[in-house]
Amino acid sequence: MQIFHIQAPEEAIRPAIQSKIDNLNKPKGSLGRLETLAMQICLAQQTLTPSLAHPCHLLLGGDHGIEREGVSVSPREVTWQQMVNFTKGGGGVNMFCRQHGFHLRIVDVGVDHDLSQIPDILNRKIAPGTRNFLHEPAMSPSEYDRAISVGIELVDACHTEGCRVLCIGEMGIANTSPSSIWMSLFCHIPLAECIGAGSGLNSTGITHKYEVLTQALNRFNSQLSTLNSQLSPEYIIRYFGGFEMVVAIGAMLRAAELQMLVLVDGFIMTACALAACQLYPAAQDYMIFGHCGDESGHRRMLDFLRAEPILSLGLRLGEGTGALCAFPIVDSAVRMMNEMNNFDNANITKYF
Amino acid sequence: MQIFHIQAPEEAIRPAIQSKIDNLNKPKGSLGRLETLAMQICLAQQTLTPSLAHPCHLLLGGDHGIEREGVSVSPREVTWQQMVNFTKGGGGVNMFCRQHGFHLRIVDVGVDHDLSQIPDILNRKIAPGTRNFLHEPAMSPSEYDRAISVGIELVDACHTEGCRVLCIGEMGIANTSPSSIWMSLFCHIPLAECIGAGSGLNSTGITHKYEVLTQALNRFNSQLSTLNSQLSPEYIIRYFGGFEMVVAIGAMLRAAELQMLVLVDGFIMTACALAACQLYPAAQDYMIFGHCGDESGHRRMLDFLRAEPILSLGLRLGEGTGALCAFPIVDSAVRMMNEMNNFDNANITKYF
Repeated sequence: MQIFHIQAPEEAIRPAIQSKIDNLNKPKGSLGRLETLAMQICLAQQTLTPSLAHPCHLLLGGDHGIEREGVSVSPREVTWQQMVNFTKGGGGVNMFCRQHGFHLRIVDVGVDHDLSQIPDILNRKIAPGTRNFLHEPAMSPSEYDRAISVGIELVDACHTEGCRVLCIGEMGIANTSPSSIWMSLFCHIPLAECIGAGSGLNSTGITHKYEVLTQALNRFNSQLSTLNSQLSPEYIIRYFGGFEMVVAIGAMLRAAELQMLVLVDGFIMTACALAACQLYPAAQDYMIFGHCGDESGHRRMLDFLRAEPILSLGLRLGEGTGALCAFPIVDSAVRMMNEMNNFDNANITKYF
Repeated sequence: MQIFHIQAPEEAIRPAIQSKIDNLNKPKGSLGRLETLAMQICLAQQTLTPSLAHPCHLLLGGDHGIEREGVSVSPREVTWQQMVNFTKGGGGVNMFCRQHGFHLRIVDVGVDHDLSQIPDILNRKIAPGTRNFLHEPAMSPSEYDRAISVGIELVDACHTEGCRVLCIGEMGIANTSPSSIWMSLFCHIPLAECIGAGSGLNSTGITHKYEVLTQALNRFNSQLSTLNSQLSPEYIIRYFGGFEMVVAIGAMLRAAELQMLVLVDGFIMTACALAACQLYPAAQDYMIFGHCGDESGHRRMLDFLRAEPILSLGLRLGEGTGALCAFPIVDSAVRMMNEMNNFDNANITKYF
């Protein structure tokens, strides 16, 4: 099992950052959330002149054994079809990467289809989909380790190119199901309050999803007591998680280790952030939560993390689109630190 | 008095717009607010391929007679000092205009200082500040007409350059005071609930502001009954308004007449939008509300207009910065319409 050395940012620089923010040419506090974002970014990067150089977006695709239980409105082939579509530039993620200058990497980490002949999809397939966690753990310990390693490798490649800010998106039909279970187990919230419509279930579909996941959770719990196992975060993560989700966790942890900022997307990526913080709480200092979506439970998961999302636009597309849409606000916070005059050079009567 | 010919967008094109949105490569409705924004923009422009060509930002500066009553924490000279500072590129508005590619025009429409020798400030001064509405109307009928005309002229110049989206910001010490009074009179909300801290008043300052504005409103009302005058929106606007505010109203109305989109900023610009809609309700179809700030009452004014702001970031700088920060979201909505694949060309199983 990989060990990460993630340090909370040194606090010594905080007064200098605050003083710079307060002396910018504006009433104190008048740039609101941009000011708190600037503080977080400057702390994470340990600087008064932060940078968002070479933004990268990792789009991770994987399939889920639990999809076989009909927990999603969409069939599993949509995963690979969308992965192919992303290589043609016509997805939501493509538009927003172009708009905000993100280098997009599309990575197959567990899609149930041979995508190896498509040059624009990086092949890091761990297996063609996870196993069905209604009956058994979704992945083995070695698959879990490989998924974490893939996340590390992907982030290292971005870092080598000079990347200071990373966005992660997912494509994986049925992946709200493991996300809901992680939320329930990590936040101690009843499962029913962690389940939503995913990409478009009606109320019958949601009820079915609830029944399947309840059954899965019951079996998991009873098997736990039989085995007398420790309920470690790692075990919960690999029992239910998708490959794209565990790769994302590895990527988030490696990014934090390298003091890179991570833009966190919607319900699924917030569940991954939650899981990553269960393993290493200090990782959260490097996370910026981009968007609070409509998926039931997302707001409560953010509240559990005491995270304040930047946007709330009712997006539920996934792919990292909510986080990408928040990027210009993060950029505004950084420009505030680097481009805005202070009172000394602006010759304004300082009146507050 | 100028007459505007503002037409609500033709509804005939709505089904075609909705059909295009619904057939894009995403679960129906999954781009949330971007989809409703796209609908509004396509309706306003009467097209399926909207454009945000040549975005322009008008930064309007003016001083207020009511400032003499100590209703603001900042002294009036900050207005002209900031206007000069904006020409040097170091203000909040400058950063965000650069970030989002807005052409910035800085216009003196009523600053109490000679700025005519500064080449980057357009001189459209109506008077060096308004009169003090504690004692008399802030502007005369002819000053009001001139202010509206300046707004028309400024928008016409942008339109000639090919501008399809306009943002308006203000610089005017004490201009939350007329905004609060407009809000109270137009929304029928007690004055006390319309008054906030402005750029940083403490509770004593807010109480003083409340007392001054109550006195002004009482005199206005008693004088009305003496004169037996009609309480027309125009009269309310010119009795309390600042030149930068009335120019903004003229600009908003002319933009709507030309089917240009207007990005509306914070408390003061929302008060101007409110006033513009009192004159011509159809103008609101061309308005996009960028940001809900912390100034007490802003949310209620937006609610009165049934407006859903894009961002809520706690900004209270003015200058149009809240609206500018929302621009990339508007841009995302437009890109969705123009760049996203539909299901026919994407070869995805349509599953919803």
